[in-house]
Amino acid sequence: MVKIGVLTVSDRAFRGEYEDLGGPKIKEWLTRVLVTSFEPVSRLVPDEQGLIEKALVELCDQEGCALVLTTGGTGPALRDVTPEATLAIAHKVMDGFGERMRQISLRYVPTAILSRQVAVVRGRSLVINLPGAPKSIDETLTELFEAVPYCIELIEGPSLETDPSVVVAFRPKKK
Amino acid sequence: MVKIGVLTVSDRAFRGEYEDLGGPKIKEWLTRVLVTSFEPVSRLVPDEQGLIEKALVELCDQEGCALVLTTGGTGPALRDVTPEATLAIAHKVMDGFGERMRQISLRYVPTAILSRQVAVVRGRSLVINLPGAPKSIDETLTELFEAVPYCIELIEGPSLETDPSVVVAFRPKKK
Amino acid sequence: MVKIGVLTVSDRAFRGEYEDLGGPKIKEWLTRVLVTSFEPVSRLVPDEQGLIEKALVELCDQEGCALVLTTGGTGPALRDVTPEATLAIAHKVMDGFGERMRQISLRYVPTAILSRQVAVVRGRSLVINLPGAPKSIDETLTELFEAVPYCIELIEGPSLETDPSVVVAFRPKKK
Repeated sequence: MVKIGVLTVSDRAFRGEYEDLGGPKIKEWLTRVLVTSFEPVSRLVPDEQGLIEKALVELCDQEGCALVLTTGGTGPALRDVTPEATLAIAHKVMDGFGERMRQISLRYVPTAILSRQVAVVRGRSLVINLPGAPKSIDETLTELFEAVPYCIELIEGPSLETDPSVVVAFRPKKK
Repeated sequence: MVKIGVLTVSDRAFRGEYEDLGGPKIKEWLTRVLVTSFEPVSRLVPDEQGLIEKALVELCDQEGCALVLTTGGTGPALRDVTPEATLAIAHKVMDGFGERMRQISLRYVPTAILSRQVAVVRGRSLVINLPGAPKSIDETLTELFEAVPYCIELIEGPSLETDPSVVVAFRPKKK
Repeated sequence: MVKIGVLTVSDRAFRGEYEDLGGPKIKEWLTRVLVTSFEPVSRLVPDEQGLIEKALVELCDQEGCALVLTTGGTGPALRDVTPEATLAIAHKVMDGFGERMRQISLRYVPTAILSRQVAVVRGRSLVINLPGAPKSIDETLTELFEAVPYCIELIEGPSLETDPSVVVAFRPKKK
């Protein structure tokens, strides 16, 4: 059973002042699109760099999640530190993911350039920061995911199969 | 009164061998486009990383500029160190601005990929490296600025209103 | 005579289990496109960060290559460390090259976002990571090269002339 971490980063959701919409949106998307059976491992932390790092390390190293998707904390505000936490626990930085997410979101809003999402590899786990807004999660995840199963295979993770009516996972022919 | 820093980085302009065209271009653009009253705070420094850092810190921390726009020193040449100085005083790095400026300039010249402009947040100040050439300043600032007022609000700076016939500042609906 | 370094990074090619196709592809491309006489300086190293760094430093500092093109080792896998080695020996990082290569490759494959290629300046040498696959080398190098001769001139390297039926090297008018 493939484990996938879903980490919501939000002071307000953590204090219960605000319903977490991002985490459930990610799980709904995965349930709808993944054909491979998976177990979501959910976490909710406030916008504290140390706590985000700790949650990411646990999801990667203890839980053994092949994929960890975060939502929240990627803007320019003082409390937005999800990218810093993600980079701090990275073994490899994958610049193409953040670039691509901003390109996708730029089709909808010029403020897409304010998004600081990053993606990194840690051991055999791929960690991707997604936007906070459920609508943006849907827009970016659907396009981005075409490259995700192949990336996870390259880092020696499990094979993920998707519903091809939503996402056609691309795998280049072997050299 | 909103303060906006305008920092020209150029050995030749500093020595008086060359007229600073970038700084005046930025002020002309701001005067034409901003409806909000503002006070420009101009500085001119040579291409020395320490002096650029000092000027940026003063404009952000002492002058309290909500926005600091630099021009010059972002190419690949030995003396071009404006991005390094800007990153050195950053609290948060905003990768989307540099990516977007290169995308915009690529429509005009393939050498846009040589531009190393970055943008960062320091406290309540947004610092953006602009190109050196007045024509490129105009091209990039007009598109980039759609996202600038919202960014400044997210870092708890003042509200900036623009002439909507030139720039429609975009503000997403509040969550 | 302008020297151009061609560095193949591949465990399998180094052990002789696999024919190096990337290095010869780069030399074929340069021979076909460059009008300026040049001497290729080839190296083949395994995917070891220390050995890649050593080869890059030698090609830049001892051999005096104006341009160094690498192939291989830029994916997300554990052994892929060419970008890390390249950043480690950098004097200046040129983010626009990696962004542009991914943009070009995205037209062909969505997995282009997994490419971690970077380009850097070291002294008077421009170092560019190219993809591993010969087809991708061709696609990216032909577009990217429009900006390369001007970049090398800005870092005080030699003048490179190209066959304009393949690559029109762009040089902005002097300020």
